[in-house]
Amino acid sequence: MLKEYKNGERFEGIVLVNEWKEVPFRQKPGAFLSLMCQDRSGVMQGKMWEYPPQILTWLREQDIFLIHGVVSEYRGALDLTIEDMRMIPKEDVDLTMLLPCSPISEIELETRLRVLLDKIHRPELGKLVGQFLDHPEWGRAYRLAPAAVKIHQAYLRGLWEHSVRVTELADGIAGHFPGMDQDLVLAGALLHDIGKIGEYSYDRGIKFTTEGRLLGHIVMGLELLSGEIAKISEFPQELRYKLLHIISSHHGKYEWQSPKRPKLMEALVIHYADVMDAELYQFEQAKASHPDDDWSPYIPSMERYLYLK
Amino acid sequence: MLKEYKNGERFEGIVLVNEWKEVPFRQKPGAFLSLMCQDRSGVMQGKMWEYPPQILTWLREQDIFLIHGVVSEYRGALDLTIEDMRMIPKEDVDLTMLLPCSPISEIELETRLRVLLDKIHRPELGKLVGQFLDHPEWGRAYRLAPAAVKIHQAYLRGLWEHSVRVTELADGIAGHFPGMDQDLVLAGALLHDIGKIGEYSYDRGIKFTTEGRLLGHIVMGLELLSGEIAKISEFPQELRYKLLHIISSHHGKYEWQSPKRPKLMEALVIHYADVMDAELYQFEQAKASHPDDDWSPYIPSMERYLYLK
Amino acid sequence: MLKEYKNGERFEGIVLVNEWKEVPFRQKPGAFLSLMCQDRSGVMQGKMWEYPPQILTWLREQDIFLIHGVVSEYRGALDLTIEDMRMIPKEDVDLTMLLPCSPISEIELETRLRVLLDKIHRPELGKLVGQFLDHPEWGRAYRLAPAAVKIHQAYLRGLWEHSVRVTELADGIAGHFPGMDQDLVLAGALLHDIGKIGEYSYDRGIKFTTEGRLLGHIVMGLELLSGEIAKISEFPQELRYKLLHIISSHHGKYEWQSPKRPKLMEALVIHYADVMDAELYQFEQAKASHPDDDWSPYIPSMERYLYLK
Amino acid sequence: MLKEYKNGERFEGIVLVNEWKEVPFRQKPGAFLSLMCQDRSGVMQGKMWEYPPQILTWLREQDIFLIHGVVSEYRGALDLTIEDMRMIPKEDVDLTMLLPCSPISEIELETRLRVLLDKIHRPELGKLVGQFLDHPEWGRAYRLAPAAVKIHQAYLRGLWEHSVRVTELADGIAGHFPGMDQDLVLAGALLHDIGKIGEYSYDRGIKFTTEGRLLGHIVMGLELLSGEIAKISEFPQELRYKLLHIISSHHGKYEWQSPKRPKLMEALVIHYADVMDAELYQFEQAKASHPDDDWSPYIPSMERYLYLK
Amino acid sequence: MLKEYKNGERFEGIVLVNEWKEVPFRQKPGAFLSLMCQDRSGVMQGKMWEYPPQILTWLREQDIFLIHGVVSEYRGALDLTIEDMRMIPKEDVDLTMLLPCSPISEIELETRLRVLLDKIHRPELGKLVGQFLDHPEWGRAYRLAPAAVKIHQAYLRGLWEHSVRVTELADGIAGHFPGMDQDLVLAGALLHDIGKIGEYSYDRGIKFTTEGRLLGHIVMGLELLSGEIAKISEFPQELRYKLLHIISSHHGKYEWQSPKRPKLMEALVIHYADVMDAELYQFEQAKASHPDDDWSPYIPSMERYLYLK
Amino acid sequence: MLKEYKNGERFEGIVLVNEWKEVPFRQKPGAFLSLMCQDRSGVMQGKMWEYPPQILTWLREQDIFLIHGVVSEYRGALDLTIEDMRMIPKEDVDLTMLLPCSPISEIELETRLRVLLDKIHRPELGKLVGQFLDHPEWGRAYRLAPAAVKIHQAYLRGLWEHSVRVTELADGIAGHFPGMDQDLVLAGALLHDIGKIGEYSYDRGIKFTTEGRLLGHIVMGLELLSGEIAKISEFPQELRYKLLHIISSHHGKYEWQSPKRPKLMEALVIHYADVMDAELYQFEQAKASHPDDDWSPYIPSMERYLYLK
Repeated sequence: MLKEYKNGERFEGIVLVNEWKEVPFRQKPGAFLSLMCQDRSGVMQGKMWEYPPQILTWLREQDIFLIHGVVSEYRGALDLTIEDMRMIPKEDVDLTMLLPCSPISEIELETRLRVLLDKIHRPELGKLVGQFLDHPEWGRAYRLAPAAVKIHQAYLRGLWEHSVRVTELADGIAGHFPGMDQDLVLAGALLHDIGKIGEYSYDRGIKFTTEGRLLGHIVMGLELLSGEIAKISEFPQELRYKLLHIISSHHGKYEWQSPKRPKLMEALVIHYADVMDAELYQFEQAKASHPDDDWSPYIPSMERYLYLK
Repeated sequence: MLKEYKNGERFEGIVLVNEWKEVPFRQKPGAFLSLMCQDRSGVMQGKMWEYPPQILTWLREQDIFLIHGVVSEYRGALDLTIEDMRMIPKEDVDLTMLLPCSPISEIELETRLRVLLDKIHRPELGKLVGQFLDHPEWGRAYRLAPAAVKIHQAYLRGLWEHSVRVTELADGIAGHFPGMDQDLVLAGALLHDIGKIGEYSYDRGIKFTTEGRLLGHIVMGLELLSGEIAKISEFPQELRYKLLHIISSHHGKYEWQSPKRPKLMEALVIHYADVMDAELYQFEQAKASHPDDDWSPYIPSMERYLYLK
Repeated sequence: MLKEYKNGERFEGIVLVNEWKEVPFRQKPGAFLSLMCQDRSGVMQGKMWEYPPQILTWLREQDIFLIHGVVSEYRGALDLTIEDMRMIPKEDVDLTMLLPCSPISEIELETRLRVLLDKIHRPELGKLVGQFLDHPEWGRAYRLAPAAVKIHQAYLRGLWEHSVRVTELADGIAGHFPGMDQDLVLAGALLHDIGKIGEYSYDRGIKFTTEGRLLGHIVMGLELLSGEIAKISEFPQELRYKLLHIISSHHGKYEWQSPKRPKLMEALVIHYADVMDAELYQFEQAKASHPDDDWSPYIPSMERYLYLK
Repeated sequence: MLKEYKNGERFEGIVLVNEWKEVPFRQKPGAFLSLMCQDRSGVMQGKMWEYPPQILTWLREQDIFLIHGVVSEYRGALDLTIEDMRMIPKEDVDLTMLLPCSPISEIELETRLRVLLDKIHRPELGKLVGQFLDHPEWGRAYRLAPAAVKIHQAYLRGLWEHSVRVTELADGIAGHFPGMDQDLVLAGALLHDIGKIGEYSYDRGIKFTTEGRLLGHIVMGLELLSGEIAKISEFPQELRYKLLHIISSHHGKYEWQSPKRPKLMEALVIHYADVMDAELYQFEQAKASHPDDDWSPYIPSMERYLYLK
Repeated sequence: MLKEYKNGERFEGIVLVNEWKEVPFRQKPGAFLSLMCQDRSGVMQGKMWEYPPQILTWLREQDIFLIHGVVSEYRGALDLTIEDMRMIPKEDVDLTMLLPCSPISEIELETRLRVLLDKIHRPELGKLVGQFLDHPEWGRAYRLAPAAVKIHQAYLRGLWEHSVRVTELADGIAGHFPGMDQDLVLAGALLHDIGKIGEYSYDRGIKFTTEGRLLGHIVMGLELLSGEIAKISEFPQELRYKLLHIISSHHGKYEWQSPKRPKLMEALVIHYADVMDAELYQFEQAKASHPDDDWSPYIPSMERYLYLK
Repeated sequence: MLKEYKNGERFEGIVLVNEWKEVPFRQKPGAFLSLMCQDRSGVMQGKMWEYPPQILTWLREQDIFLIHGVVSEYRGALDLTIEDMRMIPKEDVDLTMLLPCSPISEIELETRLRVLLDKIHRPELGKLVGQFLDHPEWGRAYRLAPAAVKIHQAYLRGLWEHSVRVTELADGIAGHFPGMDQDLVLAGALLHDIGKIGEYSYDRGIKFTTEGRLLGHIVMGLELLSGEIAKISEFPQELRYKLLHIISSHHGKYEWQSPKRPKLMEALVIHYADVMDAELYQFEQAKASHPDDDWSPYIPSMERYLYLK
């Protein structure tokens, strides 16, 4: 992995190049090529001092390359002097090698997911969630998609991690309140963000899809869920409304793009579990990135500085 | 019709009773029964000075009655002294006789609708809208549902009237802008509010349904539309997104429960046509209700007084 | 208790009278006296047809009376025809007989409180909370004060009930997040609303005090907490800031009168536990008051209808 | 025109220089002069490697120059190496040669304007609008001023173009609503933005005037209109109020600096026509600037990305 | 004056009747007439037990009457049993006898106004303000109009009182800041609300005029001021902008209907003096109306309770 | 002082270095050191072309240095070529030599403060304020602390200057309103911002403290005031509430972090005096920084441009 190399070592490996530009020299003609090289371990700036013109064409069309070069230290940071780069067919590459990924392992996520699934007693709900998670396409995407473009869990398997965390939290909260339909909380929390499967593309960096921008993950999640429910004969009508309402209302406020505010106890709990997971994730990230500081930098999404001690 | 009767005339007819209460006498024991009697022509207060107890039971369970009584003037207004009332099975009654109805005739609405349909040239869109309007259940409901519980076109056939008006207006606006997909404007405008079919119940006064409160007409419209599109083979994927986006964004703002803001020219036009039709409808209503006044009463939904001259 | 009497029974007992007025007869001179009589079981309207003038003087100065009268049914509800009323010195009355009270018993609340206290391991925090709860004045007030004037837990022992519920909830949530200072969550949650001790008076109905209106329970809580911390020698300075910050920020938003937003993980959890307890309490209340309805009436504090099924 | 020159060609022509700076060399003493040269065709960066000191004085005082130089390609873009520059008196220059201009020709705008004028039947209104448009000073300024400093129609003749477009649109909309005073819509729409005549200066780039910043185009438009009305004897008082109200309310909301919200049907239509023209103009511009993209960049004034396909 | 009469005394005098209704008897046919009788001293409820039908016609067309009747006490308040009422031509009545009036005498107001005028040294400004205050129509209206329909100084001579108070206050504040144009503060403050002259009608109760509703006092004040300035030859252009800006911005915020925010020091001071005078007037009124209370009732315009001790 | 040196002069003196970075050369290896050198007179950029590595260590740990170098002009501005720098112990330095300071002298501020103190007649209030200002720690800090990190009076002695200015202004305003407790205004205004003593650190540039970020100056001021009041035996309880309320409410709005809105006349006046002083300070600063301009740059805190003529 890119970030494991040290000053002076030769590097040979596959990287994703999402950003690049030609940088003109200041006082002589010509320019060099600056490329942001990324694999799962992180990002390293690359420089190519001489390059054939066709490389610009490749860069416009492709983003995965086999790179040869030398790592060297430049003003305290490492960068990569690239000697050669070649195109690699996308099909030959394992995406999780190139993009950042949840720090929680697949085995752990699957185990925690199964624990949650086993707690759902009502057959229709168990069947619905199971069917979705075992769906050849949805199940795989659910376990691979990021949870966001930035802000929280913006990496592969982020949706899976976020869904498991929110469900565990919501389940715990629900247990404090009599009259709560715990099965509905479990199923609703596991499914609340499924629309994110299609809201982002993540085959080359994490970006919004056109469908994601036009419809958003709430509307897309409603469609997915509606389609899955339709496959189960005699699924109770009211239960259906409730699940759709949970997806509709999980952002909690109109201003946050929820077309409904939570009107069920279960929807309320899922909304707050979702908000808390996202906000506390900010603390976790800030602590990890600034292990020696008392205060985080200003966090725009939370409109405040966080105290890290 | 109730409102055609004059002082002193005997009335016999079928009315809907949505509100009633027992009013205690001030200085003697006992009470009289006050009932709001309604048919399509409007509302008249009824009083029943003596009544057998079982009438209270009927009123809790039923709301359509055959009434005998006398119309009389009381302090400048007419009311109805009820002598006898009997239950009528709901099935025996034509709903449009009991609830207020669009002032525009069915024939006119159907004609104007057909004109709009004929302007849609793109086959998939023509097929989609036609299929919906000819659907045995949706087509009938589209032509019967109200457009609102209150505020604008809160009467039977209100949705139909509103849809036709908005489409005519949006079509006219779209014609001013090159590059506008006029077919998409027509189809989107005709379908923008279809979710209202299930958002309100209107068999005994106009009320929200549980599904309507939990999901709202935007989400319900998305589901209906999605289902209809699925019946058309090879419906273009992008066109599908655009239509769903038009429904999602037609309220224009998050605070007005749209999960997306309009990002298509066509969605923008439909949104503004919808807003203008609703607001100008307020002027029409205020002018009709206050023909001699310079100023309307304060209109809370618009946060202002309207000038009517 | 007032609400246990039936039609025709004679009543003799002590009641609190917070509202009263003289109601003029419509068509003869004179008036009768209408009084809202309350004890812990609830409220019943009283009427006094003849009354000596000095009763008006009493009513202006006092609010606790011994009443004799007869319960009778009037249009479906019971009311109380009062024959005689006498003043009772406030000191002779047990307040919990006259005002509504938490449905949870003192024994249960104390047990749950002790469980929470025992979970606090850090000595300074255990000492601080223990010292406050055992304080002869604060400890008693903490266990008697209401949690609100209206909206949630607006009854005696409401603060105690609310504090215990919020702490249990916050403690459960905190357990999901590594790096959380669980002791700080427990202590902060138990103390977050202590300012309410002085914000309301509750010796004759629940009302704001002048101090409560001028300062509010956040500022009053800061003062109380600061005073208690000062009694503990060498209480760590940073822990002190954190506890004060938890009180300052527990409403979560400036608009909700918090002078700071939560900047600690622990403060964030307490804020959300507080919000969730208050909102889910609305569901509990609505379900209890409307056991047969699908939907609650409109809840202004939540700006929505709640679904109760 | 500047933008018609190709790599290697000599340029001689008149340009407007609104921005310039001395750029120090990095590793040798001295600096070069960088100037943004602009004519109606667009902007090109100029560089002057050696320059006499008095040029700096000229640049501080003047902004129109006759330039000699050579166009050359530098990293994919063309720039201009300036060999000589001389001052040109402002009076000798035709402003529309130096600033960007509406893409619609004068002839077309005048024709469309005349069509609209001819539709006004009410004599007072026809006279008022005609008198304004034929006023030697106002009429010329109306046909030359920009519609904005940035955002929409920020070029010469932008006000004229915008006024014609809004009026055509408002006229079309008004035709859908019975009871609308079509003459008032036409006159109001043509005049709604006349205050912009003085809000911006546009003799050297488009900027706010001091009067424009202190009063704004709504207040300035009210004054202009009021002055013109005063010249017409027996202009009906109510019609005067209505026209002034249309100007006052055309931004539609207090937050958008309208001191009144639209209270006339006609004012409402003009407001929405104005908003729609400005927003759809954003689409037109985005499509023109990004002919190959699916999505526009983020548009801050609309708080969204626009879909361009 | 109405409010000087005591129980049992006969009343004969001229009153204004703005509200009236027929009140049906509960248990016998017929109704009595209830009238709100008002003169400058305040309001007293009148009752007329028998009345010829033509009185209703009079009441619909007129509002000033000569009344004969008897004052009597009814449940602690005085009311007026009316025996006879006759129409009085409006021209025969001194308006200040019928409507509430500033508690400050004309002499005092004029004296304080003159003191302020004498402090204006700059000739153009002195001339402008003097000319306005001596204008036969404007000067009289300025000294008679109310300052509001409700909330603050909603009585005759309220505008005068408010203008004098605000000017004294603004003048005092301005004295603290070097670089302030004190003359501009004086002139601007005296004229800031002149548009209220036409915003309200006050010949029969205080109401909005149509012009007032369509344009508002800011726009109307700009027009008045602009007209007066035009009479002074060679009035400096910049001084004119500044004065108009002061009127435009004196509400301080867009949401409060100011089309501009204060951008001059002098405008800022006048805005805050205006706000403070209005808010402190609320305290004065609350203290006067509730001399024995610690707290005012809830004041919606200030969104709070006021402490009165 | 740094800013007194001219081109070519040698500089030797003590400076504060808050910001620094190594700037790599573009086309040769290595870097130079850029340092922002500051003393009370202002800021000057320094460059060190060669530097031993240990200087970087010093800069990470220290910020006060004795500098030798030469002032030279570089593209119109002066900068400092540093030849040598040595650490200086913080204790050996007078802070007011290194940081900007109020332009008003200590003598003048103390005199104006004394005048205000002498106007307080009520003994408890005089004692309270005197005791605070004479407190060995608080009194010194009050006279040294800045009033803000940026925006207004962000320099040493800024709090003192701001407090005196606000008090003079509030005292003047209060004099216009009968019933105002002038003593309370004086004491409240002098103490309203005392929490700023601990909200900022200012021994090396002005920054927020951790306590300041967690609690803010309102909460910290309440604590300080509460502690001082406790030292005065028999301080009236109500007066105590009022003073605490003045601190709580002096920002005027919840959104501005005041947990209460002003409910006392005196609190209202202090709030507005505070706002006006801060806003008019913006004008003063803008006029001083842009003596030749008509308009200030955009002022984000006031959301507008200011007119400076």
